[in-house]
Amino acid sequence: MAWHKETAFDAARALQNRSLSAEHYVAACLERIDAREPEVRAFAHINREGSLQRARELDRQAIQGAMHGLTLGIKDVFDTFDMPTEGGSRAFAGHQPVQDAAVIATLRRTGAVMLGKTVTTELATFPTNGTRNPLHLDHTPGGSSSGSAAAVAAQMVSFATGTQTMGSTIRPSGYCGVTGYKPSYNLMPRRGVWANADSCDTVGLVARDVRDVAFFAAEMARYPALRLPEDPALLARAPTLGLCRTWEWERTDEAMRAAFEDSGRTLSAAGARVREIVLPEAFKGLLQAHTTVVHFEMSRGFADVLERQSGLIRPALLERTLKGLEVTGEQYQQAQTLARRCRQMFPDVLGDCDALVVPAATGEAPRGQDYSGDTSMNQVWTLMHGPAISVTGGYGPCGLPLALQVVGRIDDDARTLKAAHWVHLHLQARLARLRS
Amino acid sequence: MAWHKETAFDAARALQNRSLSAEHYVAACLERIDAREPEVRAFAHINREGSLQRARELDRQAIQGAMHGLTLGIKDVFDTFDMPTEGGSRAFAGHQPVQDAAVIATLRRTGAVMLGKTVTTELATFPTNGTRNPLHLDHTPGGSSSGSAAAVAAQMVSFATGTQTMGSTIRPSGYCGVTGYKPSYNLMPRRGVWANADSCDTVGLVARDVRDVAFFAAEMARYPALRLPEDPALLARAPTLGLCRTWEWERTDEAMRAAFEDSGRTLSAAGARVREIVLPEAFKGLLQAHTTVVHFEMSRGFADVLERQSGLIRPALLERTLKGLEVTGEQYQQAQTLARRCRQMFPDVLGDCDALVVPAATGEAPRGQDYSGDTSMNQVWTLMHGPAISVTGGYGPCGLPLALQVVGRIDDDARTLKAAHWVHLHLQARLARLRS
Repeated sequence: MAWHKETAFDAARALQNRSLSAEHYVAACLERIDAREPEVRAFAHINREGSLQRARELDRQAIQGAMHGLTLGIKDVFDTFDMPTEGGSRAFAGHQPVQDAAVIATLRRTGAVMLGKTVTTELATFPTNGTRNPLHLDHTPGGSSSGSAAAVAAQMVSFATGTQTMGSTIRPSGYCGVTGYKPSYNLMPRRGVWANADSCDTVGLVARDVRDVAFFAAEMARYPALRLPEDPALLARAPTLGLCRTWEWERTDEAMRAAFEDSGRTLSAAGARVREIVLPEAFKGLLQAHTTVVHFEMSRGFADVLERQSGLIRPALLERTLKGLEVTGEQYQQAQTLARRCRQMFPDVLGDCDALVVPAATGEAPRGQDYSGDTSMNQVWTLMHGPAISVTGGYGPCGLPLALQVVGRIDDDARTLKAAHWVHLHLQARLARLRS
Repeated sequence: MAWHKETAFDAARALQNRSLSAEHYVAACLERIDAREPEVRAFAHINREGSLQRARELDRQAIQGAMHGLTLGIKDVFDTFDMPTEGGSRAFAGHQPVQDAAVIATLRRTGAVMLGKTVTTELATFPTNGTRNPLHLDHTPGGSSSGSAAAVAAQMVSFATGTQTMGSTIRPSGYCGVTGYKPSYNLMPRRGVWANADSCDTVGLVARDVRDVAFFAAEMARYPALRLPEDPALLARAPTLGLCRTWEWERTDEAMRAAFEDSGRTLSAAGARVREIVLPEAFKGLLQAHTTVVHFEMSRGFADVLERQSGLIRPALLERTLKGLEVTGEQYQQAQTLARRCRQMFPDVLGDCDALVVPAATGEAPRGQDYSGDTSMNQVWTLMHGPAISVTGGYGPCGLPLALQVVGRIDDDARTLKAAHWVHLHLQARLARLRS
């Protein structure tokens, strides 16, 4: 059986009842890496021998936990005590941390096998590092969690970790046709994860589908209620959804708009109660506010990089960081005040909706590897601090996914994941019909 | 002139106009360390030669910025590229980071001289590391920023950095009679600062008085408006203050209550408009909510410590961390929901007040070095995410300070600092009269 093709949820069942050995599963993932890595370039470091050894140990031991034998790709801005962590930057070439990031240690303890470190854009910002979209090698996988999205999409790992400060988990996941999940701000511990802009930095997750990402999140956050309910009746219950074109609608291309409208009709036909949601006028300022917040915080956060390593980071990143120094404290505070005001309004905006459905990108993944794509459909939702989950809503002119995202209220992640699962299933069913 | 006795603000004036050399000032601080460190034990590491060398360089160079020649004590949970960072724990003995924490790099760039790393309780939690209160060596300086508060109180440094997750900046500053400032959550960048509980961790500051701490904060946050206004008329304007006994009033001792009531009368007599503020009933749950949030987040954040270093951390810390594993995700979410609700209510609670005045500790610093004091007067305000500044409101039975704190609205730090300055001046004046 080609185990790399299965969802983590199905592999986990087999691993837990020992009908599948960890060694067999890990070997299947490594074979898949052998087959696809030379062209996809998802990994910064592969821990081949260590992973097989760990798998054999797991096979000799009692079941360690829910992650027993499942494989993980770790974005290269998560510290790992047994692998280098270089952040995609010459400034940290060969850097070896002394500790695991908190979520990595948690996943190890429940039996995850760490296959390797996945490629990040430089310091989880925008200069790309050569990863290609496994669905179409001439296109970008997006960023900054480029390697994580590509590794999951190429079926090399069960799961991968990401981070999101602008749109670094949702957009690459959407471009690669897999499920990205940006949890509520502070739902996942950040200890040992490299910081960019504290008030937006969020640990993200990438998996094959919504069930998998929820399963993964429950382990990572130590919060079992994030898992999808097992009762099929609960899962089948149609959600109330807000279709929302957002104030950034003009930035989407024609294909995205068509996918959005088609998806709305599909979800309604499938039984969802669908509302048209128009965001309040105050939300118009959020895209700029997020840019202000991130530039200000990033230029402060990178103070030591600017001071002692400016010759080692790429000129485009240096330039943008220096530009952040021009943002004033007053501009920053105004932006944060607007963000806080809109966060307070957001539950009322949602009204009786379980979640909103909005575009996750302006279109399909752009051609080329030098540009990780337009972040403008992600920034507002990162700033709002609530959960977001990517789902495929259609396919673009090059046959690549057009991603939507299901966004919810802060700390309402379980409900948002459940709504996203329902949306995902019904959109997948329609897309499968169209393609057959 | 005994420069170590002067405020940083006054020393800075002399350093900026070159009437005081950096070498002379640094030497004065080092002499002060020689005199008091053997009994106070504020430092984990002293960078004597490096500091003098840096001072001589500064004397040969153009003025680098506002911190030119001023001296800093750095809590030993801030990464420094040129000094070890051990977090007060055997688990990190000899650990040498590759980077400066963001705020440290920022302060270096504006000319600060890094005298050394100050003692922290273990991993900025509660097991103490032997620092003594410079005002009375038989008493604790408080914690977790024990060495930072003690070093400033003993006039060894111009400023010191701290952190606060429960009450780790305000309480030790209050116990040692200096000014602690816990800024609004996320006002200071945390890159390179060791994490405990993400949703509460805040970079804190310790200085001689409110003017100094505001000066220091403006440099650290790259936000000039945090400095006190120079116009004496603006500074003299009496604030509107809310006297608030809080729902934790029963935990304060008699001396603290007397100091609180006396201070209220003093501030009113000095011209402040004083309101009695009773917090809404919902705030009664915040102390427990904060404990729940911190225990849950800390036990997740310390996952690698638990996994690989549990034999190296002290049994009491291990035990408390393991206890945090018993908090459920649901309990955590309920606590966060209450916190968010109270944060939204807080601006209305303040009404026309510029800030509240509340106790900063239950009493004066307890006797002994094994206990860093009761955190219950600090936790609610850390959870509220707004600014807090400690001021001395009286003296206890052992002659040690009884600290109050001035707390304000989130991101309203400049106004809160201004109010705290006014409160500080008027309480100081009264205490000086009483003592003379």
